Amino acid sequence: MNTEPNSPLGVFDSGVGGLTVVRALRELLPNESIIYLGDTARVPYGSKSPDTIRRFSVEDAQFLISRGVKAVIVACNTATAHALPTLEATFRLPIIGVLEPGVEATLADPACQRVGIIGTAGTIRSCAYQHGLAMRRPDLQIHAVATPLLAPFVEEGWVDQPSTKMVLREYLKPLIERGIDTLVLGCTHYPLLVPAIRRVLGQKVRLVDSALTCAAHVKVRLEALNLLRTAKSKPALEIHLTDLSEQFENLARQFLNADFGKVKKASLV
Amino acid sequence: MNTEPNSPLGVFDSGVGGLTVVRALRELLPNESIIYLGDTARVPYGSKSPDTIRRFSVEDAQFLISRGVKAVIVACNTATAHALPTLEATFRLPIIGVLEPGVEATLADPACQRVGIIGTAGTIRSCAYQHGLAMRRPDLQIHAVATPLLAPFVEEGWVDQPSTKMVLREYLKPLIERGIDTLVLGCTHYPLLVPAIRRVLGQKVRLVDSALTCAAHVKVRLEALNLLRTAKSKPALEIHLTDLSEQFENLARQFLNADFGKVKKASLV
Repeated sequence: MNTEPNSPLGVFDSGVGGLTVVRALRELLPNESIIYLGDTARVPYGSKSPDTIRRFSVEDAQFLISRGVKAVIVACNTATAHALPTLEATFRLPIIGVLEPGVEATLADPACQRVGIIGTAGTIRSCAYQHGLAMRRPDLQIHAVATPLLAPFVEEGWVDQPSTKMVLREYLKPLIERGIDTLVLGCTHYPLLVPAIRRVLGQKVRLVDSALTCAAHVKVRLEALNLLRTAKSKPALEIHLTDLSEQFENLARQFLNADFGKVKKASLV
Repeated sequence: MNTEPNSPLGVFDSGVGGLTVVRALRELLPNESIIYLGDTARVPYGSKSPDTIRRFSVEDAQFLISRGVKAVIVACNTATAHALPTLEATFRLPIIGVLEPGVEATLADPACQRVGIIGTAGTIRSCAYQHGLAMRRPDLQIHAVATPLLAPFVEEGWVDQPSTKMVLREYLKPLIERGIDTLVLGCTHYPLLVPAIRRVLGQKVRLVDSALTCAAHVKVRLEALNLLRTAKSKPALEIHLTDLSEQFENLARQFLNADFGKVKKASLV
């Protein structure tokens, strides 16, 4: 285990959606260095089987660990849902997923009664959110819907078209009918859809953004482990993608909401 | 080079869309044995870079060749557009793509003047269709549109929802405005969208289905090379996927429009 506080944080995702977590980390922990790996050559994970998601996730974590990170953040709901126990059993450094912080943030409002969850087919099928919520609040009404078209819409840049809203209305209809008071955005792509989701759901439903809640959780863990970076030099940000293309670089800029240096091509196998 | 006519045909695609080509092959060449490989662990290819598409395609072809196929059919427009020359230079058996037959079928009607092309970002960016058509008919008006959301809609099973039609209208609008007389369906997923496309485009625009035209081309090539299977035994159909899931198996049945035996898990690397 690497217990050097000045080592970078490692963050991985199946693609570039996890950069919403990096964005939140840079706001909350501006002194941390970050190495990001996006497995864009094999994206998406959300439609694939648990075995394959686990195998890919171990390879992703291995890449980050070989570069000396002090903790691994799984900035992908699908990978967290299926691979977190495997990663924790395989590696000896802190592994932090997006899911547990989302569950905690959902339950932070004790008034919440009816929770909707949206995510990829893999995330919803895993029942990881449903399980995490039900274990702590057995009385909670939970309604989960797989929304596999939403990430492709975000990647197409169609975050607020008429067709985006029509698809959202179709997906969210059963949740609206059940009168949810809270909606968990169980995919790191979805923060970019918040304005469109607001228009369909109205202002009263509370949205739980798994990217923001994950970053807040990382801060608490690093503080508890005395792993906050103390160096005064400018923190580094390295972005590695397993497939490079103009589209991915443009999307990466959009997700990160900032410019960054040259993206590096990563080779996992 | 394997010149044994009774060997199977090898067919690969990034996922299960290429099974529309297998379906057409089984109709036109019912005595042929077929080994299909779908690289479902790394699907889609359409949003990835040319280098990565070439690397994946060579691994896919290698898998089929190691199983003794007599020819390799690239049942994926994106892989054909980027990797066909590499595959032809790397391997010594007949390699047949979906693209050239689509170009020939488009030009088979000498009255066609204004051709629309739809496909993944990778296929459209390659300009392979545009180039193939323009080389033979310099006077042709060609309008190509990348339609990256259509394959996800097909995979979600939303082939004729109101939102499908809204997305199609948005994508096809510039083609309709230009008065196209022919539309090339440059992705093996799109045959499943024909009823919805017809409703948006009307009955007068001719649709060129790259799956059907590819199968017709394979038949002509096998005849010319004396490679038609002569055995009287029942031909085999083997389906290998690099990632297995219930969703992929269900989709595979839908694309193939037939039941088949157990799907096998393939390991490429």
